[in-house]
Amino acid sequence: MIDTVRRFVPLLQWGRTYDRQSLASDSMAGLIVAIMLVPQGMAYALLAGLPAEVGLYASIVPLIFYGLLGSSRALAVGPVAIVSLMVASTLGEIAEQGSAGYLAGAVMLAFLSGAILLGMGVARVGFLVNFLSHPVISGFSSAAALIIGFSQLKHLLGFEIPRSHLITETILHALTHIAQVNWATLLIAAVSLAILLGFKSRVAGVLKSTGVSAGLADAIAKSGPLVAVVVTTIAVWALALNDTAGVKIVADIPSGLPPLAVPAFDVDLARQLLPAAALISVVGFLESVSVAKSLASKRRQKIDANQELIALGAANLGAAFTSGYPVTGGFSRSLVNFTSGAVTPLASIITAVLIGIAVMVLTPLLFFLPKATLAAIIVVAVANLIDIKTLRETFAYDLADFMSLVATFISVLTLGIELGIVVGAGLSIVLYLWRTSRPHMAVVGRVGDTEHFRNVLRHEVKTDPAILAIRVDESLYFANTAYLEDEILARVSDSPDIKHLVLIMSAVNFIDASALETLETLTERLRDAGVTVHLTDVKGPVSDKLQRIAFFDHMGDGKVYLSIHDAITELSAKPTLPPRKAA
Amino acid sequence: MIDTVRRFVPLLQWGRTYDRQSLASDSMAGLIVAIMLVPQGMAYALLAGLPAEVGLYASIVPLIFYGLLGSSRALAVGPVAIVSLMVASTLGEIAEQGSAGYLAGAVMLAFLSGAILLGMGVARVGFLVNFLSHPVISGFSSAAALIIGFSQLKHLLGFEIPRSHLITETILHALTHIAQVNWATLLIAAVSLAILLGFKSRVAGVLKSTGVSAGLADAIAKSGPLVAVVVTTIAVWALALNDTAGVKIVADIPSGLPPLAVPAFDVDLARQLLPAAALISVVGFLESVSVAKSLASKRRQKIDANQELIALGAANLGAAFTSGYPVTGGFSRSLVNFTSGAVTPLASIITAVLIGIAVMVLTPLLFFLPKATLAAIIVVAVANLIDIKTLRETFAYDLADFMSLVATFISVLTLGIELGIVVGAGLSIVLYLWRTSRPHMAVVGRVGDTEHFRNVLRHEVKTDPAILAIRVDESLYFANTAYLEDEILARVSDSPDIKHLVLIMSAVNFIDASALETLETLTERLRDAGVTVHLTDVKGPVSDKLQRIAFFDHMGDGKVYLSIHDAITELSAKPTLPPRKAA
Repeated sequence: MIDTVRRFVPLLQWGRTYDRQSLASDSMAGLIVAIMLVPQGMAYALLAGLPAEVGLYASIVPLIFYGLLGSSRALAVGPVAIVSLMVASTLGEIAEQGSAGYLAGAVMLAFLSGAILLGMGVARVGFLVNFLSHPVISGFSSAAALIIGFSQLKHLLGFEIPRSHLITETILHALTHIAQVNWATLLIAAVSLAILLGFKSRVAGVLKSTGVSAGLADAIAKSGPLVAVVVTTIAVWALALNDTAGVKIVADIPSGLPPLAVPAFDVDLARQLLPAAALISVVGFLESVSVAKSLASKRRQKIDANQELIALGAANLGAAFTSGYPVTGGFSRSLVNFTSGAVTPLASIITAVLIGIAVMVLTPLLFFLPKATLAAIIVVAVANLIDIKTLRETFAYDLADFMSLVATFISVLTLGIELGIVVGAGLSIVLYLWRTSRPHMAVVGRVGDTEHFRNVLRHEVKTDPAILAIRVDESLYFANTAYLEDEILARVSDSPDIKHLVLIMSAVNFIDASALETLETLTERLRDAGVTVHLTDVKGPVSDKLQRIAFFDHMGDGKVYLSIHDAITELSAKPTLPPRKAA
Repeated sequence: MIDTVRRFVPLLQWGRTYDRQSLASDSMAGLIVAIMLVPQGMAYALLAGLPAEVGLYASIVPLIFYGLLGSSRALAVGPVAIVSLMVASTLGEIAEQGSAGYLAGAVMLAFLSGAILLGMGVARVGFLVNFLSHPVISGFSSAAALIIGFSQLKHLLGFEIPRSHLITETILHALTHIAQVNWATLLIAAVSLAILLGFKSRVAGVLKSTGVSAGLADAIAKSGPLVAVVVTTIAVWALALNDTAGVKIVADIPSGLPPLAVPAFDVDLARQLLPAAALISVVGFLESVSVAKSLASKRRQKIDANQELIALGAANLGAAFTSGYPVTGGFSRSLVNFTSGAVTPLASIITAVLIGIAVMVLTPLLFFLPKATLAAIIVVAVANLIDIKTLRETFAYDLADFMSLVATFISVLTLGIELGIVVGAGLSIVLYLWRTSRPHMAVVGRVGDTEHFRNVLRHEVKTDPAILAIRVDESLYFANTAYLEDEILARVSDSPDIKHLVLIMSAVNFIDASALETLETLTERLRDAGVTVHLTDVKGPVSDKLQRIAFFDHMGDGKVYLSIHDAITELSAKPTLPPRKAA
């Protein structure tokens, strides 16, 4: 009983050995992440089409819930770019931005995502998310990053650009209306970008060279977003740029902790949002679990995918009941948490408390925060998602994978984010089926006088004209049985002297019912043509199943050998029999 | 050039050696099939909700086109039960039976099917149909046979039963309205069934025992449908059962050859019918190619799937331009053609000519043909499709296959025929992915002092505590990489003495980009834990691709061995190194 509780509440594991040093580490990491998360949370909320405070609300209770339940010690949960984009794309279909329906939709998405994730975790079906391949995820992320980046163009340039899921339309509109550019806004954006990029690439090095300790230098380097926010907010306030130059600002953010609220449950709305919520859950979970795994492996800790589903589910339910929107573990934020020294999920809980304090006392100071600064923060964050490396590596390694990456990328950009990833995932499955539907088959011969047998095309080997030994390099199942049959019959008819066909099953991991039927037919047909079929290297599980239906009893003169060496040795010594039936 | 023409027009191959004996054989087969096809064609047309003559029209030009282009020498093309049911189910959604729109829809379906099949044949993508597994096809056929059988209940009982895709509704309606039964109709149905079943099971034996030659006896046995038609038609005419007892008859069938007509091309209608046409094409092609293959193998002939697509495409276009409806190769009819002695497709052309003559002169004689007789012919024909044998065998052999059979069967009965087969096919693909997503892995050891290595759980073998040798029984791809990683890490952490992990790749037929990434991460992580990863038995194609990206250069101290024997021999001799990093 206690073990079960411990499994589901990882806090009980790390809590027992918690000490002062861990607390110091976690506090530092929690503070740095909080400094990063205040502007990011607001920026992502705007990306999702929601008021800035919703991003802050989603950065409090969800973090606490994840901290109590999560199996990762360094994951930083909260609003993230891709999920925010998916929220915007989904809610754009059902309500106007800024309307009560839009807000209710965001809460509903968080609620549904939470329920789906929790359900998947309890049902222990975390393995399902593995059906998205890495190239599909890479193509999806790159395309989503482009869409997100261009969606911020209006904030950077300071004039309205109609929403469109086609970035070509966005660019075209921006170019044709470039005369409307707000120069003050553009300047603020440029300054913000310079600060962000400067802090990212230079500050740590410069500080270290002037004698600042490495830890402090790294911590300061991560405060780029905060510095950009402070500098540009002061500039707008001091010069009253919102009034005099029309710079758009965040303006009123309600003070105080997020209102606790039971989401209004509208069955029609729930049904309408369910597919999108499922996709948001899967994509969010994938992002989260992949970063959690890569961080855990650095410290030789373990991530339990099903426990992560439960923790993220709880985090999203937390978001739903505190006027938030869907959250997940973010890549860059978790990396910051990790490198800043987070040793337990307490760091996340500290972040949450600090953000709670910020929401209560800091919001009046953010009145003059320009939206252009938040847009710049988003652009810099998503630039990392554009993944040229995987594109290049996949191209060099495997054409089918490369195709599914490019197809996903193009589908997301042209068909939109939800349909795009579905098309990509479907295509990667079809390509996999296609790949296994034309199995590689090798005719093998004996290497010298050894017991080794290798492909006749790749090695200098000896063969017996009366024996055809074929190794089939694939499990036999419905999609490849027809090909198998055609290939084997063609090879047999090419070599009229053949009396024995030896099928080497070392790479056959299962034979499904369709393939079994084909194998039976093939054996029978070849018997009529005077060719006996033998099997070698049949794997244990395959053999067990064939035995269960007495397959080996119907092989006629054919035998099952332990190895190809045994088969060839015995068959070469045999006198060959005449065919039973004339051809 | 001439070879290309010959490939696409098989007639030019068999035509050159045609002789008088072949003509005699083909004529006999052509006649027997025609006798069978006249009542069947009308019956299936009624099943499709079309006038009886449409079934006859679809049995003339399509047969000639198939005869000229088909690669099967015994396939008998024409209306078939399942395709007729699919036509009825599709057109029932768009028009009233008997309306001009319904007829136009049938022609459009034939046209679209023809275009799709022809297109697939020219694009040489016949392999795509292999994605339907045998259990799915079996479950589909059984369910379709039940639906077809129960759809004839109204004709057998002689009172109206509302169309429903749920057989439970049909049965319930029949039972609650059983008082409306038309006894004369029921009697005719019973007599027809008795004749059909009697001819099927008894007649050949009785005739042979009275000294009739086997060939003639078999031929007479196949005329059951004709005898039933003649007997019941005469009975209705003589007793005027249509007037006195309300027996439904076929009545007026227009005399004369089918009108040549260009199908009215309605883009909206075409778009609406396209998905159904695609499904009809695939299902029809599957039925056709599987019977063609099984007959061809009996005479050691070859079927070219892509040529079959072209021939069936042409046959359906022929149907579209002669007021017909979709056709394909029928199972029982082709078997009759084959056993009656058809040696070339000329048999089909002879059948077509005879049916043409029948349409011109015989239709007045069919005025009093009762619909109950046609319904009985359908019921007897589809009873063969109910496939209990595959159900039983699949249950014994493989649970996943059994599940997809049962799921397809239930889906077709509950969701309808089109959605049902799509659900079944989707499920069989998901089950396949699931099966490959948790690969079997075997830890192996040396058998005695031999070079053989086998699963430690199945054989008495020797192992070295510093070496873990694992055979992975599956290609490595996106759906199983996470499982692979977790399993290997778990096994390594279970055995702290391990210094070398040897992955035996004899069953790994490819490694996709996702799995490659996992393999790289795994190697790195294990290296940090003081475990070196080695590979053995890497297949040629896999090795080529790994070499292309210089994978082997990043294996550190790990090596690639030709065989597990070589690996273990060398590694056992090595002194073990301390881990590079403390755990």
